[in-house]
Amino acid sequence: MCEATVFVSKGKDLEKVMEDVVELRREGDKLLLVDVFGEQRIISAKVGEVQLMDHRIVLREG
Amino acid sequence: MCEATVFVSKGKDLEKVMEDVVELRREGDKLLLVDVFGEQRIISAKVGEVQLMDHRIVLREG
Repeated sequence: MCEATVFVSKGKDLEKVMEDVVELRREGDKLLLVDVFGEQRIISAKVGEVQLMDHRIVLREG
Repeated sequence: MCEATVFVSKGKDLEKVMEDVVELRREGDKLLLVDVFGEQRIISAKVGEVQLMDHRIVLREG
């Protein structure tokens, strides 16, 4: 399976936002995250990095 | 494997940009795409949508 863990970069640290994410979609200036269970989360951020082999997506706030 | 095909949305159409992408990274106002063979492509776009189960990433130009 190809779920990813989504982090937000805070300076040099990564803060975990959501696990098992299967969908990420821009909604205006926010991002909608959806996990494998259908749980949703909206976050004010931009996509900084998508590492598909590492199952990792890093967002940048703002 | 979790490679994705990257498209750019052009109005209602999707134009394929790159297949077998494993990495996507923001570089200033552009995006760097890297495929499974290490081929790179830089495109002036933003991430609109990431569909991990469909192995599909849709960008928006500009």
